[in-house]
Amino acid sequence: MSKLTLDGFFSYCKQIAEHIQLGERMAALSGQGTPKLTSAVGNLYYDSILPYREDANTQTREFLARVVDVLLDFVQQVNDRNEKILEFRMPEEMMKMLDLQLHDEPLPLRQLLEDCKITLKNQVKTGHPHFFNQLSCGLDIISLAGEWLTAAANTNMFTYEIAPVFILMENVVLEKMRSMIGWKSGDSILAPGGSVSNLYAFLAARHHKFPQYKEKGLTSIPGHLVMFTSDQCHYSVKSCASVCGLGTDYCVAVPSDERGKLIPSELERLVRYHKDRGNVPFFVNATSGTTVLGAFDPLVEIADICQKYDMWMHVDAAWGGGLLFSKKYRHPRLTGIERADSVTWNPHKLMGTLLQCSTVHFKYEGILLSCNAMSAEYLFMTDKIYDPRYDTGDKVIQCGRHNDIFKLWLQWRGKGTSGFERLMDRLMELSEYMVRRIREQPDRFYLILEPELVNVSFWYLPRQLRGVPHDKHKEIKLGKVCAKLKGKMMQAGTIMVGYQPDDRRPNFFRNIISSAAVTEKDVDFLLAEMDRLGQDIVVD
Amino acid sequence: MSKLTLDGFFSYCKQIAEHIQLGERMAALSGQGTPKLTSAVGNLYYDSILPYREDANTQTREFLARVVDVLLDFVQQVNDRNEKILEFRMPEEMMKMLDLQLHDEPLPLRQLLEDCKITLKNQVKTGHPHFFNQLSCGLDIISLAGEWLTAAANTNMFTYEIAPVFILMENVVLEKMRSMIGWKSGDSILAPGGSVSNLYAFLAARHHKFPQYKEKGLTSIPGHLVMFTSDQCHYSVKSCASVCGLGTDYCVAVPSDERGKLIPSELERLVRYHKDRGNVPFFVNATSGTTVLGAFDPLVEIADICQKYDMWMHVDAAWGGGLLFSKKYRHPRLTGIERADSVTWNPHKLMGTLLQCSTVHFKYEGILLSCNAMSAEYLFMTDKIYDPRYDTGDKVIQCGRHNDIFKLWLQWRGKGTSGFERLMDRLMELSEYMVRRIREQPDRFYLILEPELVNVSFWYLPRQLRGVPHDKHKEIKLGKVCAKLKGKMMQAGTIMVGYQPDDRRPNFFRNIISSAAVTEKDVDFLLAEMDRLGQDIVVD
Repeated sequence: MSKLTLDGFFSYCKQIAEHIQLGERMAALSGQGTPKLTSAVGNLYYDSILPYREDANTQTREFLARVVDVLLDFVQQVNDRNEKILEFRMPEEMMKMLDLQLHDEPLPLRQLLEDCKITLKNQVKTGHPHFFNQLSCGLDIISLAGEWLTAAANTNMFTYEIAPVFILMENVVLEKMRSMIGWKSGDSILAPGGSVSNLYAFLAARHHKFPQYKEKGLTSIPGHLVMFTSDQCHYSVKSCASVCGLGTDYCVAVPSDERGKLIPSELERLVRYHKDRGNVPFFVNATSGTTVLGAFDPLVEIADICQKYDMWMHVDAAWGGGLLFSKKYRHPRLTGIERADSVTWNPHKLMGTLLQCSTVHFKYEGILLSCNAMSAEYLFMTDKIYDPRYDTGDKVIQCGRHNDIFKLWLQWRGKGTSGFERLMDRLMELSEYMVRRIREQPDRFYLILEPELVNVSFWYLPRQLRGVPHDKHKEIKLGKVCAKLKGKMMQAGTIMVGYQPDDRRPNFFRNIISSAAVTEKDVDFLLAEMDRLGQDIVVD
Repeated sequence: MSKLTLDGFFSYCKQIAEHIQLGERMAALSGQGTPKLTSAVGNLYYDSILPYREDANTQTREFLARVVDVLLDFVQQVNDRNEKILEFRMPEEMMKMLDLQLHDEPLPLRQLLEDCKITLKNQVKTGHPHFFNQLSCGLDIISLAGEWLTAAANTNMFTYEIAPVFILMENVVLEKMRSMIGWKSGDSILAPGGSVSNLYAFLAARHHKFPQYKEKGLTSIPGHLVMFTSDQCHYSVKSCASVCGLGTDYCVAVPSDERGKLIPSELERLVRYHKDRGNVPFFVNATSGTTVLGAFDPLVEIADICQKYDMWMHVDAAWGGGLLFSKKYRHPRLTGIERADSVTWNPHKLMGTLLQCSTVHFKYEGILLSCNAMSAEYLFMTDKIYDPRYDTGDKVIQCGRHNDIFKLWLQWRGKGTSGFERLMDRLMELSEYMVRRIREQPDRFYLILEPELVNVSFWYLPRQLRGVPHDKHKEIKLGKVCAKLKGKMMQAGTIMVGYQPDDRRPNFFRNIISSAAVTEKDVDFLLAEMDRLGQDIVVD
């Protein structure tokens, strides 16, 4: 110390300061400590920050920054394999435990930060590597960043005037997707979920074939319209028939084979049956990736039949569409998709875009405007200073539309087309790995069928049912195991896998690998954990 | 320096360190400097952060934290009256200027952060205090925090299993909203926008009156269904008629008076006319807050007619519903709403909740399930460990649903019911202020009618048209001024106000004050700026 000079002193101070800063930064970045608002800001109310007080930039930024700290902690926990997926509580118990009430008086910002923490603490971590429960799993970080920006931009997608960049992004992304389907031109829109996308397809088909219905209604069409779809299709297709006034009786379920694929000869038989009765077959829905089994309907054969009988061909590739990225897996599953008239494809499923992000594509330019325009003059004036064809509001049945494009666009920039291809291949390979691991443990697991997609369908065998010959009687018992084992999963909170019955068998597990977080080790953990939780289950 | 002790030295260092830290913190909180990623993180790609690399917490947090810095800067700019609302560019020019392309190869995180900055730089600031263009304006900070959390939670709303807290929040909020309408029980759902909410109401009405249509279709109903709505209604009502197979010819436009309110005697006359012709009047849409004029249809008289002719009464209060909070403005505007069978009410409009947040409410418990259920067994099993009535997926036509509740719930916690009431009263008072200011400048502005809501309809008079007697001929010229003046606004980027024609007059301005950011000074600025930009306009 005796040799300390002034320069040396300041240099030393600076080092210490940097050290302290670094420590603080690292602590902040690694999420240590519970994010808290300084009391000066925590005691404030909504009307002491922006936009109520113009001079409250610092306070507003601190509030939002602390909320983000809570979210970043959550993102970290979601990706921590040692964290549970959920702390399951019955609805009544949860209601008692949480304070969800809406009060007359405002609550301070401190309480709102606390509300955020408690909400996330009790929410299911759908992005956890051990969450295999839904078609939409995972938490893509870049798409998350995109959704945060979307919220801050808070705009509606109906006109170029108020969403210029986002409208152009839609054009770029949707054109790219159409080209991947195999079309040089066409029309597309983002919709709030695959069901609404399918509804758009139905509406376009009806308009294309019977333009008079728009003004005159269904009764103006000679004969009863009939639509066809496999018995494995998503229920939204049937819902279309109800919503649009056809009636579900006129949504004909075409039998599928044992792998869940629509049988073309059955389709043709049923089309002829209805034609013979004076009905008007006009719409066929082919599914590329069924919800339960992940089956792909044979598109080429279906396209031939649609051509022969002059019917609209829609492909519901909400689930399986992502495989269009993969040179390895695209064929034969999606071969023939370019012959469709319309295609639903949900990036929020296999591609991992944040919920919600669903697209529907049409082979025909301008069809959406022609089908859905109600020409609301107050929005879509023709005397604007830019080409009003950039306005999308009159193409849709929703008027306003949430901005679902930015999170997909940013994600695509981040991954590149090749990154999506790698992701598709990886998810498929992991599913193949899971199938192998199930086959290697025939005493504990029973594979129901060789999957075409990341849906792996199987039963788990508790000790009670091992060594018993497999027959219909045993399947009923295996079905009963599902609900019990799922209950145990929920209570343990360590894994989540869905189950359901279908028309050929009672309850069985359907495992989904659609999260980029999953590795081979997670698949091993899943099977081991099912065994740990399930081995002692006894059913009647 | 000679008396420096070791303790004193460290204490001094600590002070300096704190000073440096404080400076850095303040700089960060006040948004100075352009947020940048450290080169170590900026050079990374998507597959070097979560969930692709488990050990990348720090890098992931840094990336997201820097994105949030960009967003916080944007929030600050949005609230800065010295900032422009937009830098208008023609679509073709914007396309050339921006790099929106999707590449085969991934882009580094640095570029994605840059993408975020550039996007916001070129986006319209819909939350700016001088943006008066849409029904949804403003940027509510607490709702923004809620939407950020929603994105991180990234879950779907179809089952309690995967969205436990959010499902309970929906129940709490929707019950509260129903009670504000005046109902003790009932059913509700959040939908992607007011148009879809109106569609839900239409579907419920049809199902309630003609349950057989679900299976048998519209043709099973004796006579042609007819719906009624005022000629001022939102165009989604007409769209329902097209989507659902009625045909727009059977959506009857009831004349409105000069204030834009449906004329009850005309409604009754048209109902009788259609009954006499063997058609089946079954649905009346009353609008509480029309899109252009902000008019409120007379609900009590309409309810009487609906009762007399056994028709379903729907109130589209997407826009005006917020006034239910206000003791001062609720009556007489919304008097009688409790007699409706269904009500659409969009928190993303007057209440300032982030887009999108739309609700639809029904007087009848269980009606949504009865109307829309397709009973998809793979989602909605009855052998779950909790009461499956908490699952909402089978109540809706969308299957999956975006989580639109948290941002509204958190905002309501933050404002309290009383805070929403104050906001409604404030927006109305500001609109009244604007009307006064327009009246005070009769040479420059022409008020078209005394508004009932925050829609202020007026013309601007450039020098050329001042002192000229007001007649139809002049109105045509005033209409031409609108497009020219709007073009100048877009180019200047200082204010944005919408314009449109209606069935009684050519183009006129419709100003909306629905942002909590607006003050009397902003209204003064708006009128002065219109005058500055518009005074020299000359029209043919």
